[in-house]
Amino acid sequence: MFPWLQHYRRAMLPGDISAGIVVAMMMIPQGMAYALVAGLPPVAGIYASIVPPLLYAVFGTSSTQSVGPMAIISLMTASALAPLASPGSALYGVLAAQLALLSGAVLLVCGLLRIGFLANFFSRPVMSGFTIGSAILIAWGQVPPLLGGLPDLHGPSAALGLGALALLLWARQFMAGSLRRLGMPPVAADIGSKLAPMLVVLGALALVPALGLDARGVAITGTVPAGLPGLNLATSSGHWQALLQPALLIGFMIFLISMSGAQTLALKRGEKLGSNRELVGLGAANLGSALSGGFPVTGSISRSAVNFSAGANSQLASIITAALLAVALVAPTGWLALLPLPVLAATIIVAVLGMLDLSTLRTAWRYDRADAAALLATAAGVLALGVEAGVVVGVALSMGALIWRASRPHIAVLGRIPGSEHFRNVERYATETAPGLLMLRVDAGLFFGNVEAVNERIEDELAAHPDTRHLVLVLSAVNAIDTSALFGLGELNASLRQRGVLLHLAEVKGPVMDRLRHSELLQALNGRLFLSAAMAWDELA
Amino acid sequence: MFPWLQHYRRAMLPGDISAGIVVAMMMIPQGMAYALVAGLPPVAGIYASIVPPLLYAVFGTSSTQSVGPMAIISLMTASALAPLASPGSALYGVLAAQLALLSGAVLLVCGLLRIGFLANFFSRPVMSGFTIGSAILIAWGQVPPLLGGLPDLHGPSAALGLGALALLLWARQFMAGSLRRLGMPPVAADIGSKLAPMLVVLGALALVPALGLDARGVAITGTVPAGLPGLNLATSSGHWQALLQPALLIGFMIFLISMSGAQTLALKRGEKLGSNRELVGLGAANLGSALSGGFPVTGSISRSAVNFSAGANSQLASIITAALLAVALVAPTGWLALLPLPVLAATIIVAVLGMLDLSTLRTAWRYDRADAAALLATAAGVLALGVEAGVVVGVALSMGALIWRASRPHIAVLGRIPGSEHFRNVERYATETAPGLLMLRVDAGLFFGNVEAVNERIEDELAAHPDTRHLVLVLSAVNAIDTSALFGLGELNASLRQRGVLLHLAEVKGPVMDRLRHSELLQALNGRLFLSAAMAWDELA
Repeated sequence: MFPWLQHYRRAMLPGDISAGIVVAMMMIPQGMAYALVAGLPPVAGIYASIVPPLLYAVFGTSSTQSVGPMAIISLMTASALAPLASPGSALYGVLAAQLALLSGAVLLVCGLLRIGFLANFFSRPVMSGFTIGSAILIAWGQVPPLLGGLPDLHGPSAALGLGALALLLWARQFMAGSLRRLGMPPVAADIGSKLAPMLVVLGALALVPALGLDARGVAITGTVPAGLPGLNLATSSGHWQALLQPALLIGFMIFLISMSGAQTLALKRGEKLGSNRELVGLGAANLGSALSGGFPVTGSISRSAVNFSAGANSQLASIITAALLAVALVAPTGWLALLPLPVLAATIIVAVLGMLDLSTLRTAWRYDRADAAALLATAAGVLALGVEAGVVVGVALSMGALIWRASRPHIAVLGRIPGSEHFRNVERYATETAPGLLMLRVDAGLFFGNVEAVNERIEDELAAHPDTRHLVLVLSAVNAIDTSALFGLGELNASLRQRGVLLHLAEVKGPVMDRLRHSELLQALNGRLFLSAAMAWDELA
Repeated sequence: MFPWLQHYRRAMLPGDISAGIVVAMMMIPQGMAYALVAGLPPVAGIYASIVPPLLYAVFGTSSTQSVGPMAIISLMTASALAPLASPGSALYGVLAAQLALLSGAVLLVCGLLRIGFLANFFSRPVMSGFTIGSAILIAWGQVPPLLGGLPDLHGPSAALGLGALALLLWARQFMAGSLRRLGMPPVAADIGSKLAPMLVVLGALALVPALGLDARGVAITGTVPAGLPGLNLATSSGHWQALLQPALLIGFMIFLISMSGAQTLALKRGEKLGSNRELVGLGAANLGSALSGGFPVTGSISRSAVNFSAGANSQLASIITAALLAVALVAPTGWLALLPLPVLAATIIVAVLGMLDLSTLRTAWRYDRADAAALLATAAGVLALGVEAGVVVGVALSMGALIWRASRPHIAVLGRIPGSEHFRNVERYATETAPGLLMLRVDAGLFFGNVEAVNERIEDELAAHPDTRHLVLVLSAVNAIDTSALFGLGELNASLRQRGVLLHLAEVKGPVMDRLRHSELLQALNGRLFLSAAMAWDELA
């Protein structure tokens, strides 16, 4: 329990306390806002910010990750629940908790299966495109509550919403600078500017009763039930089935989003994450969210960055945040009821503006147009087809890039550097070759992704060297041969035998040879095994 | 048109004619049987065997591929249409043609996008598991028609079906041997045994009127409409939407199944396939099937193998087959009406028994347990979740294997071979290292799939060599750096700067350097660029 506690030093405490307070002040408006994005009452966002970070602190590995509601995961939650229940209904809240339960279970199972290497799945451009598309969808979805309705806006609501939006945009752009000019140290000024949403929310809470805005038709959150609701498992099996596929997608994105943020922060500290333990930590956090009236949660990069720069040294910071939020809920929560929705909509819009980071697109555009195209295609997929289909588009593009890369192994025709025992690419070195002898070196492990490409290249080289009697595959760079490639080599061997060409293998690595001994390829091989390319040359040239 | 016609030699004609006749005799029972598997009237299988191979002959690249109905694709067709219409209804036939249209369009678009490299997607074990699972599903589905009903079997039907089954099983096992003992040459005997289904069907057609089996309650196919039905596009947009996802999966499997068969045959002839042109050929074939009253089609490995061994030298063989089938339809088709369904069920069961090839499982089990597990998981996925989910399971497993492989690049710590300019893996050669200098060689292109693994290894080595002042990445084996890895290197550079370690790059390849010049990494690099590892050593050691 709390593995980081063993190395805790007293010097880490002040940083953790200040970060814990700052993040709590950031979490209150953010949690409520992201609960709204998920289609839930704002208080559910506070619930989801208490138990999940405690469980992550027990099982997770990042020292500064702040786990709780996050905009994109809330959007995916809303998209998953929309066909099943209407927002605001009791069923909707129950299904949100069940979705967190299933997502958490998916993450836990993946962690126990140790498939954390999937964190490497989305390329940076695909993730950026997904984030940009989601941010636009979220912001667009907040325009009606911001204005009190669309197309007929409600005057007082629109005034309040647009006013809050203007204030928040000003704070985002200029508040840190102003605070610095007032003599605040730069780091403190930056952190102070992150508390603008909390200040705006507090201001709105004062304004509503002062101006009687609720009586004038401005939507407010309404009374908040006291205490934490428990998990309710009593829905139909049809609901559970309908939740399974979204839970898979949401679990996948919870992991990718959390890891991409945590890795960035870990690199800044030279800290090491365990991706399988991260899966378990995030899974436990979501189970905890399900049990405490919440909805799917993940690590938020923006909140974790504030946690980091506010001085967090360990997960104690997140525990302090959670404790403060719990206190806020235990204290009379009547004040929450008066929070005007247009103001929360404004905080959401400004928060997701921060996700509209175009620098990845700019870099990719200059550096690699294919990556830029993948970014734009993913963003377009999210906007045109929705956030779930956007994940599928991202998966397809990443997968396509992987297969394309795998299907182009580097293969060199080798020649001998005259008078030596060295063999090099004939295209890059002055080498000699021998008539009837073709030597090829494959610079990649042989597996299903490249077995056809290797075969095609061999056919091309045989066509270019029609006098070939001996084909030597130099496997010095081949670290593994999978079952598909084993079959491929067997079929190549049979095909070459019919054509009167002998297939030889040279420089087979130890672990590869250990495996090949369990196969029939070596007995069937119509040529020979050579320890080195030089030995093959001496024998066959 | 017909590109192979340019190289056609008269000597190829006899083989093409004999193969054309043999495959036509094989196609009649097989086409009807696979139409039944697809939930369509048997005659649709003949329709689907005429126009598609003609179009494939124009656009495809395999000389011996036999395109037409195929068991697994028929199973997927039935599975896609089951929720939308009931087999035998007019709507069902219309939707089957529309599914062929959409699948064909998917294939054509993929061909025009030139993403034929996706043919390398399924590993051999995953494909084998998918085939085994599908074969069991298909055979199981034919048990009720074989027995004339389940659980209450119908005596005459069961007798006929089980009799046909016994005959076909005998033929499969012993007919080739018997024909050889009667003096037939081995190849001819093998081919002759493939005609057993046709003989059994002809026998059944004689038996039905002779014994009055139809009057005794044995199900027969019923009257066949004359002529080819055209494509009917008039269904609701809801139907089109519901067909889109199955069409994607079916198009994908049409391509994978056709390519895996064609590649095996191409290798036997040293022939080269163009995967993008194969996509176009298969796409055109399916559009043709849609226009001529058929359903999704693909290349069948078993039929193509018969085509090959019966002497096919070119697609002329398939054209002859198609012509013969067209003649069979123009001739009075009353005889088709009397075909008993239990006999067709028996031909289906025996045909798919040939797909239950356990040799891949045996080889994988001995050679690589992970591959064997992937095979079994895919087969179990098909059986437990259905054929569409089985494709998804196969995709997930293949994808997982790709990412896992990508996430484990080989990385070597380099040392100098004393007194030389050669640098080698310190674990494998007697080398010297210099204090404060850490040299790492990454033996893989840097991309999103391995950027984290590289970072982790670097952190591990820095932890193991805490005195490091200079980190040299030797990029001699790095053929490409994608945008994600570019960001990774930038973040590594920033992180190392904070920790007082200089990051240097050595032996950057020409094309990689051309790209890096378009990025900010080189300006931001806190260390230097070296042409060779030796130069870095001379400067930094």
